Amino acid sequence: MCFTPQEYLSQEIPAPHTAVVIDVLRATTSMVTAMANNCLQIIPAATVEEALAAKERYPKALLAGERQALIIPGFDLGNSPGEYGPETVADKTIIMTTTNGTLALKAASRAAKVYVGAMANMGAVSRKLAAEEQDVVLICAGTDGRFSLEDMLCAGLCGQQLTGKAVLGDSVIAARGLFREFQRSGLKKQMLGSAHASFLASQGFLKDVEYCLQIDILAIVPEYCQGAIRR
Amino acid sequence: MCFTPQEYLSQEIPAPHTAVVIDVLRATTSMVTAMANNCLQIIPAATVEEALAAKERYPKALLAGERQALIIPGFDLGNSPGEYGPETVADKTIIMTTTNGTLALKAASRAAKVYVGAMANMGAVSRKLAAEEQDVVLICAGTDGRFSLEDMLCAGLCGQQLTGKAVLGDSVIAARGLFREFQRSGLKKQMLGSAHASFLASQGFLKDVEYCLQIDILAIVPEYCQGAIRR
Repeated sequence: MCFTPQEYLSQEIPAPHTAVVIDVLRATTSMVTAMANNCLQIIPAATVEEALAAKERYPKALLAGERQALIIPGFDLGNSPGEYGPETVADKTIIMTTTNGTLALKAASRAAKVYVGAMANMGAVSRKLAAEEQDVVLICAGTDGRFSLEDMLCAGLCGQQLTGKAVLGDSVIAARGLFREFQRSGLKKQMLGSAHASFLASQGFLKDVEYCLQIDILAIVPEYCQGAIRR
Repeated sequence: MCFTPQEYLSQEIPAPHTAVVIDVLRATTSMVTAMANNCLQIIPAATVEEALAAKERYPKALLAGERQALIIPGFDLGNSPGEYGPETVADKTIIMTTTNGTLALKAASRAAKVYVGAMANMGAVSRKLAAEEQDVVLICAGTDGRFSLEDMLCAGLCGQQLTGKAVLGDSVIAARGLFREFQRSGLKKQMLGSAHASFLASQGFLKDVEYCLQIDILAIVPEYCQGAIRR
Protein backbone atom coordinates (compact mmCIF):
# COMPACT_ATOMS: atom_id res chain seq x y z
CA MET A 1 0.00 0.00 0.00
CA CYS A 2 1.17 3.52 -0.77
CA PHE A 3 -0.15 6.51 1.17
CA THR A 4 0.15 8.82 -1.84
CA PRO A 5 0.63 8.50 -5.63
CA GLN A 6 4.02 10.22 -5.13
CA GLU A 7 5.12 7.38 -2.84
CA TYR A 8 3.95 4.84 -5.44
CA LEU A 9 5.91 6.56 -8.20
CA SER A 10 9.07 6.80 -6.08
CA GLN A 11 9.18 3.08 -5.28
CA GLU A 12 10.42 0.09 -7.10
CA ILE A 13 7.39 -2.16 -7.32
CA PRO A 14 7.65 -5.75 -8.54
CA ALA A 15 6.19 -5.87 -12.01
CA PRO A 16 3.67 -6.91 -13.17
CA HIS A 17 1.24 -5.99 -10.44
CA THR A 18 -2.38 -5.01 -9.95
CA ALA A 19 -3.15 -1.58 -8.49
CA VAL A 20 -6.28 -0.41 -6.70
CA VAL A 21 -6.72 3.37 -6.69
CA ILE A 22 -8.62 4.70 -3.68
CA ASP A 23 -9.98 8.24 -3.26
CA VAL A 24 -12.91 7.74 -0.91
CA LEU A 25 -13.74 11.45 -0.55
CA ARG A 26 -14.99 11.61 -3.23
CA ALA A 27 -13.54 10.83 -6.66
CA THR A 28 -13.46 7.04 -6.71
CA THR A 29 -16.79 6.84 -4.84
CA SER A 30 -18.36 9.05 -7.53
CA MET A 31 -16.72 7.00 -10.29
CA VAL A 32 -17.96 3.70 -8.86
CA THR A 33 -21.44 5.20 -8.44
CA ALA A 34 -21.44 6.42 -12.05
CA MET A 35 -20.36 3.00 -13.35
CA ALA A 36 -23.00 1.27 -11.21
CA ASN A 37 -25.53 3.59 -12.84
CA ASN A 38 -24.52 2.39 -16.31
CA CYS A 39 -22.23 5.18 -17.31
CA LEU A 40 -20.52 4.09 -20.57
CA GLN A 41 -17.00 5.19 -19.59
CA ILE A 42 -15.08 7.77 -17.57
CA ILE A 43 -12.01 9.51 -19.01
CA PRO A 44 -9.82 10.79 -16.16
CA ALA A 45 -8.04 14.07 -16.96
CA ALA A 46 -5.20 15.53 -14.89
CA THR A 47 -6.05 19.16 -15.61
CA VAL A 48 -8.98 21.30 -16.72
CA GLU A 49 -7.13 21.89 -20.00
CA GLU A 50 -6.78 18.14 -20.55
CA ALA A 51 -10.49 17.70 -19.80
CA LEU A 52 -11.44 20.37 -22.35
CA ALA A 53 -9.15 18.76 -24.95
CA ALA A 54 -10.83 15.38 -24.34
CA LYS A 55 -14.21 17.05 -24.80
CA GLU A 56 -13.20 17.86 -28.39
CA ARG A 57 -12.72 14.14 -29.01
CA TYR A 58 -15.99 13.25 -27.19
CA PRO A 59 -18.30 16.20 -27.93
CA LYS A 60 -21.32 14.55 -26.27
CA ALA A 61 -19.40 13.74 -23.05
CA LEU A 62 -20.30 15.27 -19.72
CA LEU A 63 -17.54 17.39 -18.13
CA ALA A 64 -17.14 16.63 -14.44
CA GLY A 65 -14.82 17.49 -11.58
CA GLU A 66 -13.86 19.84 -8.81
CA ARG A 67 -11.23 22.21 -7.58
CA GLN A 68 -11.20 22.94 -3.83
CA ALA A 69 -14.27 20.67 -3.56
CA LEU A 70 -16.45 22.89 -5.82
CA ILE A 71 -17.74 22.23 -9.36
CA ILE A 72 -15.47 23.70 -12.04
CA PRO A 73 -17.17 26.72 -13.71
CA GLY A 74 -18.80 25.67 -17.00
CA PHE A 75 -18.68 21.94 -16.17
CA ASP A 76 -21.79 19.73 -16.08
CA LEU A 77 -21.12 17.86 -12.84
CA GLY A 78 -19.15 18.39 -9.62
CA ASN A 79 -17.70 15.61 -7.50
CA SER A 80 -20.75 14.62 -5.40
CA PRO A 81 -21.72 10.96 -5.91
CA GLY A 82 -25.36 12.10 -5.73
CA GLU A 83 -24.91 13.91 -9.06
CA TYR A 84 -24.08 10.65 -10.83
CA GLY A 85 -27.59 9.14 -10.90
CA PRO A 86 -28.77 6.91 -13.80
CA GLU A 87 -30.94 9.68 -15.25
CA THR A 88 -27.75 11.73 -15.75
CA VAL A 89 -25.00 9.26 -16.56
CA ALA A 90 -26.53 6.14 -18.20
CA ASP A 91 -24.78 5.39 -21.53
CA LYS A 92 -22.79 8.60 -21.25
CA THR A 93 -19.07 9.27 -21.48
CA ILE A 94 -17.84 11.38 -18.56
CA ILE A 95 -14.60 13.36 -18.66
CA MET A 96 -13.51 13.91 -15.08
CA THR A 97 -10.77 15.92 -13.40
CA THR A 98 -10.40 16.09 -9.62
CA THR A 99 -7.62 17.33 -7.34
CA ASN A 100 -6.29 13.97 -6.18
CA GLY A 101 -8.21 10.97 -7.53
CA THR A 102 -7.65 11.44 -11.25
CA LEU A 103 -3.94 12.15 -10.65
CA ALA A 104 -3.67 8.90 -8.69
CA LEU A 105 -5.29 6.95 -11.54
CA LYS A 106 -2.84 8.40 -14.04
CA ALA A 107 0.10 7.57 -11.73
CA ALA A 108 -1.17 3.98 -11.57
CA SER A 109 -0.83 3.42 -15.30
CA ARG A 110 2.50 1.58 -14.79
CA ALA A 111 0.46 -1.26 -13.20
CA ALA A 112 -0.63 -4.18 -15.36
CA LYS A 113 -4.21 -3.82 -14.14
CA VAL A 114 -5.86 -0.88 -12.35
CA TYR A 115 -9.09 -1.19 -10.39
CA VAL A 116 -11.12 1.69 -8.98
CA GLY A 117 -11.87 1.20 -5.28
CA ALA A 118 -13.94 2.90 -2.60
CA MET A 119 -15.70 1.87 0.61
CA ALA A 120 -18.79 1.44 -1.57
CA ASN A 121 -17.39 -1.40 -3.69
CA MET A 122 -14.45 -2.77 -1.65
CA GLY A 123 -16.15 -6.13 -1.05
CA ALA A 124 -16.32 -6.72 -4.80
CA VAL A 125 -12.76 -5.43 -5.24
CA SER A 126 -11.45 -7.70 -2.47
CA ARG A 127 -13.14 -10.76 -3.99
CA LYS A 128 -11.45 -9.94 -7.29
CA LEU A 129 -8.06 -9.38 -5.60
CA ALA A 130 -8.28 -12.70 -3.75
CA ALA A 131 -8.30 -14.41 -7.14
CA GLU A 132 -5.31 -12.41 -8.52
CA GLU A 133 -2.12 -14.28 -9.29
CA GLN A 134 0.10 -11.20 -9.12
CA ASP A 135 1.04 -8.79 -6.32
CA VAL A 136 -1.45 -6.08 -5.43
CA VAL A 137 -0.62 -2.49 -4.50
CA LEU A 138 -3.28 -0.29 -2.94
CA ILE A 139 -2.67 3.34 -3.96
CA CYS A 140 -4.26 5.97 -1.75
CA ALA A 141 -4.92 9.22 -3.60
CA GLY A 142 -4.18 11.27 -0.48
CA THR A 143 -4.74 15.02 -0.37
CA ASP A 144 -2.30 17.26 -2.26
CA GLY A 145 0.51 14.73 -1.91
CA ARG A 146 -0.14 14.11 1.76
CA PHE A 147 -1.59 11.29 3.83
CA SER A 148 -5.37 10.98 3.83
CA LEU A 149 -7.16 9.28 6.73
CA GLU A 150 -10.20 8.12 4.76
CA ASP A 151 -8.10 6.43 2.06
CA MET A 152 -6.02 4.56 4.65
CA LEU A 153 -9.29 3.51 6.28
CA CYS A 154 -10.53 2.12 2.97
CA ALA A 155 -7.25 0.26 2.40
CA GLY A 156 -7.80 -1.16 5.89
CA LEU A 157 -11.26 -2.35 4.90
CA CYS A 158 -9.62 -4.14 1.96
CA GLY A 159 -7.04 -5.71 4.32
CA GLN A 160 -9.85 -6.79 6.63
CA GLN A 161 -11.77 -8.39 3.77
CA LEU A 162 -8.66 -10.16 2.42
CA THR A 163 -7.66 -11.64 5.80
CA GLY A 164 -6.71 -15.28 5.53
CA LYS A 165 -6.28 -15.14 1.79
CA ALA A 166 -3.29 -12.88 1.31
CA VAL A 167 0.05 -11.89 2.82
CA LEU A 168 -0.40 -8.30 3.94
CA GLY A 169 2.39 -5.73 4.01
CA ASP A 170 2.98 -3.65 7.14
CA SER A 171 1.10 -0.62 5.87
CA VAL A 172 -2.00 -2.71 5.10
CA ILE A 173 -1.71 -4.36 8.55
CA ALA A 174 -1.65 -0.84 10.05
CA ALA A 175 -4.58 0.24 7.90
CA ARG A 176 -6.57 -2.83 8.95
CA GLY A 177 -5.89 -2.01 12.61
CA LEU A 178 -7.15 1.52 12.02
CA PHE A 179 -10.27 0.23 10.26
CA ARG A 180 -11.08 -2.16 13.13
CA GLU A 181 -10.70 0.60 15.72
CA PHE A 182 -12.81 3.08 13.75
CA GLN A 183 -15.49 0.49 13.01
CA ARG A 184 -15.69 -0.24 16.74
CA SER A 185 -15.88 3.39 17.77
CA GLY A 186 -18.00 4.67 14.87
CA LEU A 187 -16.78 5.38 11.34
CA LYS A 188 -18.76 8.57 10.85
CA LYS A 189 -17.86 10.11 14.20
CA GLN A 190 -14.18 9.29 13.74
CA MET A 191 -14.05 10.46 10.14
CA LEU A 192 -15.64 13.82 10.91
CA GLY A 193 -12.56 14.50 13.04
CA SER A 194 -10.39 14.27 9.90
CA ALA A 195 -9.23 17.29 7.92
CA HIS A 196 -10.87 16.52 4.57
CA ALA A 197 -14.18 15.16 5.88
CA SER A 198 -14.66 18.13 8.19
CA PHE A 199 -13.71 20.51 5.35
CA LEU A 200 -16.29 18.87 3.07
CA ALA A 201 -18.92 19.04 5.82
CA SER A 202 -18.15 22.75 6.29
CA GLN A 203 -18.72 23.28 2.54
CA GLY A 204 -22.18 21.69 2.72
CA PHE A 205 -21.15 18.19 1.64
CA LEU A 206 -21.92 16.25 4.84
CA LYS A 207 -24.33 14.03 2.88
CA ASP A 208 -21.51 13.13 0.49
CA VAL A 209 -19.29 12.13 3.43
CA GLU A 210 -22.06 9.93 4.84
CA TYR A 211 -22.63 8.31 1.45
CA CYS A 212 -18.92 7.71 0.86
CA LEU A 213 -18.54 5.89 4.21
CA GLN A 214 -21.13 3.23 3.31
CA ILE A 215 -19.50 -0.16 2.90
CA ASP A 216 -20.23 -2.62 0.05
CA ILE A 217 -23.31 -0.94 -1.35
CA LEU A 218 -22.17 -1.42 -4.97
CA ALA A 219 -20.94 -4.79 -6.26
CA ILE A 220 -18.94 -3.66 -9.28
CA VAL A 221 -15.21 -3.32 -9.99
CA PRO A 222 -14.51 -0.65 -12.59
CA GLU A 223 -11.19 -1.05 -14.38
CA TYR A 224 -8.98 1.73 -15.71
CA CYS A 225 -7.41 0.65 -18.99
CA GLN A 226 -6.03 2.56 -21.97
CA GLY A 227 -7.17 5.93 -20.70
CA ALA A 228 -10.72 5.05 -19.72
CA ILE A 229 -12.60 3.53 -16.78
CA ARG A 230 -15.08 0.87 -17.81
CA ARG A 231 -17.08 -1.80 -15.98
CA MET B 1 3.59 13.20 11.71
CA CYS B 2 5.77 11.96 8.88
CA PHE B 3 6.05 8.25 8.06
CA THR B 4 9.67 8.60 6.91
CA PRO B 5 12.51 11.15 7.13
CA GLN B 6 12.21 11.51 3.35
CA GLU B 7 8.58 12.66 3.75
CA TYR B 8 9.66 15.13 6.43
CA LEU B 9 12.38 16.59 4.20
CA SER B 10 10.03 16.89 1.21
CA GLN B 11 7.43 18.90 3.09
CA GLU B 12 7.06 22.51 3.95
CA ILE B 13 6.78 22.49 7.72
CA PRO B 14 5.83 25.64 9.65
CA ALA B 15 8.98 26.90 11.36
CA PRO B 16 10.00 26.90 14.13
CA HIS B 17 8.78 23.52 15.29
CA THR B 18 9.74 20.72 17.66
CA ALA B 19 10.50 17.30 16.19
CA VAL B 20 10.35 13.92 17.91
CA VAL B 21 12.40 11.24 16.15
CA ILE B 22 11.07 7.70 16.61
CA ASP B 23 12.88 4.46 15.71
CA VAL B 24 11.38 1.96 18.13
CA LEU B 25 13.22 -1.08 16.69
CA ARG B 26 15.80 -0.36 17.94
CA ALA B 27 17.88 2.83 17.61
CA THR B 28 15.91 5.35 19.66
CA THR B 29 15.06 2.72 22.28
CA SER B 30 18.77 1.96 22.66
CA MET B 31 19.60 5.68 22.80
CA VAL B 32 16.99 6.38 25.48
CA THR B 33 18.24 3.36 27.45
CA ALA B 34 21.85 4.57 27.21
CA MET B 35 20.90 8.07 28.38
CA ALA B 36 18.85 6.64 31.26
CA ASN B 37 21.99 4.71 32.24
CA ASN B 38 23.97 7.95 32.48
CA CYS B 39 25.73 7.89 29.17
CA LEU B 40 27.42 11.29 28.75
CA GLN B 41 26.38 11.89 25.14
CA ILE B 42 25.60 10.09 21.88
CA ILE B 43 26.98 11.36 18.56
CA PRO B 44 24.79 10.08 15.70
CA ALA B 45 26.73 9.33 12.52
CA ALA B 46 25.13 8.72 9.13
CA THR B 47 27.80 6.30 7.89
CA VAL B 48 30.51 4.02 9.24
CA GLU B 49 33.11 6.42 7.78
CA GLU B 50 31.52 9.34 9.63
CA ALA B 51 31.54 7.27 12.84
CA LEU B 52 35.24 6.47 12.45
CA ALA B 53 36.01 10.14 11.78
CA ALA B 54 34.15 11.12 14.97
CA LYS B 55 36.17 8.52 16.87
CA GLU B 56 39.31 10.52 16.02
CA ARG B 57 37.77 13.54 17.78
CA TYR B 58 36.59 11.41 20.73
CA PRO B 59 39.28 8.68 21.09
CA LYS B 60 37.73 7.26 24.27
CA ALA B 61 34.24 7.01 22.77
CA LEU B 62 32.47 3.70 22.24
CA LEU B 63 31.64 2.88 18.62
CA ALA B 64 28.11 1.54 18.27
CA GLY B 65 25.70 0.60 15.54
CA GLU B 66 24.38 -1.97 13.12
CA ARG B 67 24.02 -2.84 9.49
CA GLN B 68 21.30 -5.37 8.60
CA ALA B 69 20.61 -5.66 12.34
CA LEU B 70 24.12 -6.96 13.18
CA ILE B 71 26.98 -5.24 15.02
CA ILE B 72 29.44 -3.51 12.67
CA PRO B 73 32.77 -5.42 12.59
CA GLY B 74 35.29 -3.77 14.91
CA PHE B 75 32.64 -1.76 16.77
CA ASP B 76 32.14 -1.99 20.56
CA LEU B 77 28.37 -2.24 20.65
CA GLY B 78 25.53 -3.34 18.37
CA ASN B 79 22.01 -1.96 18.46
CA SER B 80 20.47 -4.07 21.26
CA PRO B 81 19.22 -1.94 24.17
CA GLY B 82 20.50 -4.67 26.51
CA GLU B 83 24.07 -3.73 25.52
CA TYR B 84 23.63 -0.20 26.87
CA GLY B 85 23.73 -1.01 30.60
CA PRO B 86 25.23 1.41 33.16
CA GLU B 87 28.38 -0.72 33.55
CA THR B 88 29.10 -0.11 29.88
CA VAL B 89 27.83 3.40 29.08
CA ALA B 90 27.96 5.51 32.27
CA ASP B 91 29.88 8.76 31.67
CA LYS B 92 30.85 7.58 28.19
CA THR B 93 30.53 9.21 24.79
CA ILE B 94 28.93 6.85 22.25
CA ILE B 95 29.28 7.32 18.51
CA MET B 96 26.35 5.55 16.87
CA THR B 97 25.41 4.73 13.30
CA THR B 98 22.29 2.72 12.45
CA THR B 99 20.43 2.09 9.22
CA ASN B 100 17.42 4.32 9.86
CA GLY B 101 17.41 6.02 13.25
CA THR B 102 20.58 8.06 12.99
CA LEU B 103 19.59 9.20 9.49
CA ALA B 104 16.24 10.36 10.83
CA LEU B 105 17.95 12.36 13.57
CA LYS B 106 20.18 14.10 11.06
CA ALA B 107 17.18 14.87 8.84
CA ALA B 108 15.46 16.45 11.85
CA SER B 109 18.14 19.06 12.33
CA ARG B 110 16.00 21.70 10.56
CA ALA B 111 13.70 21.59 13.62
CA ALA B 112 14.21 24.13 16.41
CA LYS B 113 14.23 21.35 19.00
CA VAL B 114 14.65 17.59 18.50
CA TYR B 115 13.64 15.01 21.10
CA VAL B 116 14.45 11.30 20.99
CA GLY B 117 11.33 9.17 21.43
CA ALA B 118 10.49 5.49 21.86
CA MET B 119 7.72 3.46 23.50
CA ALA B 120 10.02 3.35 26.54
CA ASN B 121 9.94 7.11 27.22
CA MET B 122 6.88 8.37 25.34
CA GLY B 123 5.05 9.34 28.53
CA ALA B 124 7.87 11.71 29.45
CA VAL B 125 8.06 12.98 25.86
CA SER B 126 4.30 13.59 25.72
CA ARG B 127 4.34 15.54 28.99
CA LYS B 128 7.08 17.73 27.55
CA LEU B 129 5.20 18.18 24.26
CA ALA B 130 2.01 19.18 26.06
CA ALA B 131 3.91 22.19 27.44
CA GLU B 132 5.38 23.20 24.04
CA GLU B 133 4.32 26.52 22.55
CA GLN B 134 5.26 25.58 18.98
CA ASP B 135 4.01 22.95 16.53
CA VAL B 136 5.24 19.41 16.96
CA VAL B 137 6.16 16.99 14.15
CA LEU B 138 6.63 13.30 14.92
CA ILE B 139 9.21 11.84 12.52
CA CYS B 140 9.12 8.07 12.09
CA ALA B 141 12.49 6.66 11.05
CA GLY B 142 10.83 3.98 8.93
CA THR B 143 12.82 1.22 7.29
CA ASP B 144 14.95 2.08 4.27
CA GLY B 145 12.72 4.99 3.34
CA ARG B 146 9.54 2.99 3.77
CA PHE B 147 6.70 2.92 6.27
CA SER B 148 7.42 1.16 9.55
CA LEU B 149 4.58 -0.29 11.62
CA GLU B 150 6.28 -0.01 15.01
CA ASP B 151 7.14 3.67 14.55
CA MET B 152 3.55 4.51 13.58
CA LEU B 153 2.42 2.59 16.64
CA CYS B 154 4.72 4.68 18.84
CA ALA B 155 3.45 7.91 17.24
CA GLY B 156 -0.04 6.61 18.07
CA LEU B 157 0.97 6.12 21.70
CA CYS B 158 2.07 9.76 21.70
CA GLY B 159 -1.28 10.83 20.18
CA GLN B 160 -3.10 8.77 22.81
CA GLN B 161 -1.13 10.40 25.61
CA LEU B 162 -1.66 13.91 24.20
CA THR B 163 -5.44 13.50 23.83
CA GLY B 164 -7.35 16.50 25.09
CA LYS B 165 -4.30 18.73 25.12
CA ALA B 166 -3.41 19.09 21.45
CA VAL B 167 -4.91 19.35 17.98
CA LEU B 168 -3.87 16.15 16.21
CA GLY B 169 -3.22 15.91 12.47
CA ASP B 170 -4.85 13.14 10.44
CA SER B 171 -1.79 10.88 10.47
CA VAL B 172 -1.55 11.05 14.27
CA ILE B 173 -5.30 10.36 14.52
CA ALA B 174 -4.71 7.29 12.34
CA ALA B 175 -1.70 6.25 14.41
CA ARG B 176 -3.70 6.63 17.62
CA GLY B 177 -6.45 4.41 16.17
CA LEU B 178 -3.83 1.81 15.30
CA PHE B 179 -2.33 1.98 18.80
CA ARG B 180 -5.74 1.52 20.44
CA GLU B 181 -6.51 -1.51 18.29
CA PHE B 182 -3.12 -3.13 18.87
CA GLN B 183 -3.25 -2.43 22.61
CA ARG B 184 -6.63 -4.13 22.73
CA SER B 185 -5.55 -7.16 20.74
CA GLY B 186 -2.00 -7.48 22.12
CA LEU B 187 0.99 -5.34 21.14
CA LYS B 188 3.50 -8.18 21.04
CA LYS B 189 1.33 -10.55 19.03
CA GLN B 190 0.45 -7.84 16.52
CA MET B 191 4.00 -6.54 16.22
CA LEU B 192 5.47 -9.97 15.56
CA GLY B 193 3.33 -9.98 12.40
CA SER B 194 5.29 -6.97 11.11
CA ALA B 195 8.23 -7.20 8.73
CA HIS B 196 10.95 -5.70 10.90
CA ALA B 197 9.97 -7.28 14.22
CA SER B 198 9.72 -10.73 12.68
CA PHE B 199 13.08 -10.21 10.91
CA LEU B 200 14.69 -9.22 14.22
CA ALA B 201 13.13 -12.24 15.96
CA SER B 202 14.50 -14.48 13.20
CA GLN B 203 17.98 -13.03 13.82
CA GLY B 204 17.81 -13.90 17.54
CA PHE B 205 16.64 -10.49 18.74
CA LEU B 206 13.17 -11.43 20.09
CA LYS B 207 14.18 -10.16 23.55
CA ASP B 208 15.03 -6.78 22.02
CA VAL B 209 11.59 -6.60 20.40
CA GLU B 210 9.93 -7.42 23.73
CA TYR B 211 12.02 -4.77 25.52
CA CYS B 212 11.31 -2.12 22.87
CA LEU B 213 7.52 -2.62 23.17
CA GLN B 214 7.47 -1.75 26.87
CA ILE B 215 5.66 1.55 27.49
CA ASP B 216 6.90 4.34 29.79
CA ILE B 217 9.65 2.42 31.55
CA LEU B 218 12.11 5.35 31.32
CA ALA B 219 11.14 8.89 32.36
CA ILE B 220 13.74 10.88 30.43
CA VAL B 221 13.63 12.98 27.27
CA PRO B 222 17.01 13.07 25.52
CA GLU B 223 17.49 16.06 23.23
CA TYR B 224 19.52 16.14 20.02
CA CYS B 225 21.29 19.47 19.73
CA GLN B 226 24.42 20.64 17.90
CA GLY B 227 25.40 17.15 16.80
CA ALA B 228 24.95 15.30 20.08
CA ILE B 229 22.17 13.68 22.12
CA ARG B 230 22.23 14.69 25.77
CA ARG B 231 19.81 14.38 28.65
